[in-house]
Amino acid sequence: MENGMEVALQQAREAGLRGEVPVGAVLLGPDGAVLAQNGNRVEEWCDPSAHAEMLVMREAVRLRQGKRLADCTLVVTLEPCPMCAAAITHFRVGRVLFGAYDPKGGGVEHGPRVPYRPESLHKPEVIGGVREREAGALLKTFFQILRATTVPADS
Amino acid sequence: MENGMEVALQQAREAGLRGEVPVGAVLLGPDGAVLAQNGNRVEEWCDPSAHAEMLVMREAVRLRQGKRLADCTLVVTLEPCPMCAAAITHFRVGRVLFGAYDPKGGGVEHGPRVPYRPESLHKPEVIGGVREREAGALLKTFFQILRATTVPADS
Repeated sequence: MENGMEVALQQAREAGLRGEVPVGAVLLGPDGAVLAQNGNRVEEWCDPSAHAEMLVMREAVRLRQGKRLADCTLVVTLEPCPMCAAAITHFRVGRVLFGAYDPKGGGVEHGPRVPYRPESLHKPEVIGGVREREAGALLKTFFQILRATTVPADS
Repeated sequence: MENGMEVALQQAREAGLRGEVPVGAVLLGPDGAVLAQNGNRVEEWCDPSAHAEMLVMREAVRLRQGKRLADCTLVVTLEPCPMCAAAITHFRVGRVLFGAYDPKGGGVEHGPRVPYRPESLHKPEVIGGVREREAGALLKTFFQILRATTVPADS
């Protein structure tokens, strides 16, 4: 699974180079093989729902022609947001490994904590903080560059 | 907007005829014109994220080549789930009208109540219960038929 995070980090780097918030995700099958990998495509596709996690979950069920991913692991560089956290329960993903925690926008260990809610129909195994420093550094650098190169609105 | 719910109800009926949970949605532009309409496609596309709301929001931003729907109204026959409720905030939908309340699976007025959370970056105007009886009756009938025609697992 450590290798899964390496693939996800590479996807995050590539997303950053495309001008996306650098988040990458990988969907691993029961044998650990990569079923799908992608990075954020929000800007490229003009689609605010095109988060890396959503893309790999949709790709994986398309490839398997089955709606559920109970025997699979989702590896993602950032704590999923509430939309992705709820989607994880819809797709019945068995296990989620994520890199950096997201106290402001996260929906797994922060905010609504979707998988732990009493009404949640599915509770995946969750492991956070996997290669946290690297995943977080990518995001930090991206936003530093963005701030340094963005012209203030009042100038 | 009443007309929007009629279109959404028709989409829900058509979804039910395709064997989907009968939920339909419409995305209305600032002038009330229909930008996108669809019903659930979860079974057809083998995609647990293919909820009617997600499909019309994605279609509308694709058509407008812009990521935000702040001047638009989403009309949907059932209270959006947490995934769709969070997506509504990502797409910055200005107004949400929904039909039946969903105490078990809803994410707007029930469960995590996503748009009302302190960390939510966007709070749409929300009007629930629009033609509630019709929207709810469609779902009730669908599940009654499903129960009556499903062979028990132990038979």
